[in-house]
Amino acid sequence: MNAVAIASGGLDSTVLLWKLRNDGHVVKALGFDYGQRHRVELKALRAICERGQFPLQVVDLSSLGSVIAGDSSQLNPEVEVPEGHYADETMKQTVVPNRNMIMLSVAIGHAVATGAEAVAYGAHAGDHAIYPDCREPFAAAMGDAARLCDWNPVELLRPFVRMSKAEIVAEGSRLHAPLEVTWSCYKGGDVHCGRCGTCVERREAFEQAGVQDPTEYLA
Amino acid sequence: MNAVAIASGGLDSTVLLWKLRNDGHVVKALGFDYGQRHRVELKALRAICERGQFPLQVVDLSSLGSVIAGDSSQLNPEVEVPEGHYADETMKQTVVPNRNMIMLSVAIGHAVATGAEAVAYGAHAGDHAIYPDCREPFAAAMGDAARLCDWNPVELLRPFVRMSKAEIVAEGSRLHAPLEVTWSCYKGGDVHCGRCGTCVERREAFEQAGVQDPTEYLA
Repeated sequence: MNAVAIASGGLDSTVLLWKLRNDGHVVKALGFDYGQRHRVELKALRAICERGQFPLQVVDLSSLGSVIAGDSSQLNPEVEVPEGHYADETMKQTVVPNRNMIMLSVAIGHAVATGAEAVAYGAHAGDHAIYPDCREPFAAAMGDAARLCDWNPVELLRPFVRMSKAEIVAEGSRLHAPLEVTWSCYKGGDVHCGRCGTCVERREAFEQAGVQDPTEYLA
Repeated sequence: MNAVAIASGGLDSTVLLWKLRNDGHVVKALGFDYGQRHRVELKALRAICERGQFPLQVVDLSSLGSVIAGDSSQLNPEVEVPEGHYADETMKQTVVPNRNMIMLSVAIGHAVATGAEAVAYGAHAGDHAIYPDCREPFAAAMGDAARLCDWNPVELLRPFVRMSKAEIVAEGSRLHAPLEVTWSCYKGGDVHCGRCGTCVERREAFEQAGVQDPTEYLA
């Protein structure tokens, strides 16, 4: 199938690109600039797509900042990025209101406009504790909506929705995805901070997968 | 409830604003600039919200044009707006790929960010023939997604989804909504063209509702 993959420059969506191709799909990457604090991930995304020769289009949604920011640490510069474990209650502050539905809806529109049959995103089971829009019931509802939004149904692929992040790292290693180029840190500095929730989760995933972690951490 | 209403400056969403208030909701209007040919509707929207004292925010999604345009006459300047009856096959050309899902996802994100409990849109039964994303099954799937996308569920209101446009005009007349300020024409000129699908549908709706049509048509 022709598939539009939502890609961020992070671990999950990078492995997603390689997995989709390995499964026989023709893949185009769609990135999103929504004014995120960790915008450095888009630089990683460009390098990743170049490495894999995936066509990439970055959608400018930076004007949405004022509409959906709320008290999200990733959009509102007055809110600090919390440190600690990804499963902590404070990590809710990193959530960008309805980000996945917004990105999916644009990707589905792009699929309809370009005649692609599928849209894919890298939601996984490790996200579930804090992100409702990474859970399978949400994905299933969006899958229904994607089948019904146009005369030509679009299929919503979410191959990692029941996998842990460690399993994704293992899969990425198996498929020779360029994990060392990916970006996770929510603080968006020059190197990974090593303390924010996504850095902690990244470290744990490599460790649990038994894959050597190529990441440089500040602490 | 606090409700975010998707508003275009057209008939349906204008009556929607008045109906929601009449039903006891506190209503905020959200408009969308997605580079539409008939952008003049946003001028009507501003006048309508001023008339009804509804707070209004217009979201700039004009950067989406190149991502979702395809061969839509409303986004692609090289495609002409078809004339004729709204039910004609050619009217499919006016469809903006996945427009409703995109607007709904942003409105739901705004509801989450501002603590509103509901999002409303004016899809109605007359749209069904050509717009899949105005049908109840699509609205139901999006309603499920809206309940699941965040810790606080958002309710999706679609009070007109089984009503005809004539019934909406009748309802608007009953509620004293400023129908004369609303804009329908897809050509986006100075006055309604009278020939495009939306103009034909508008005329029919007033006639069938037995409400005097206040619109100036070119032909």
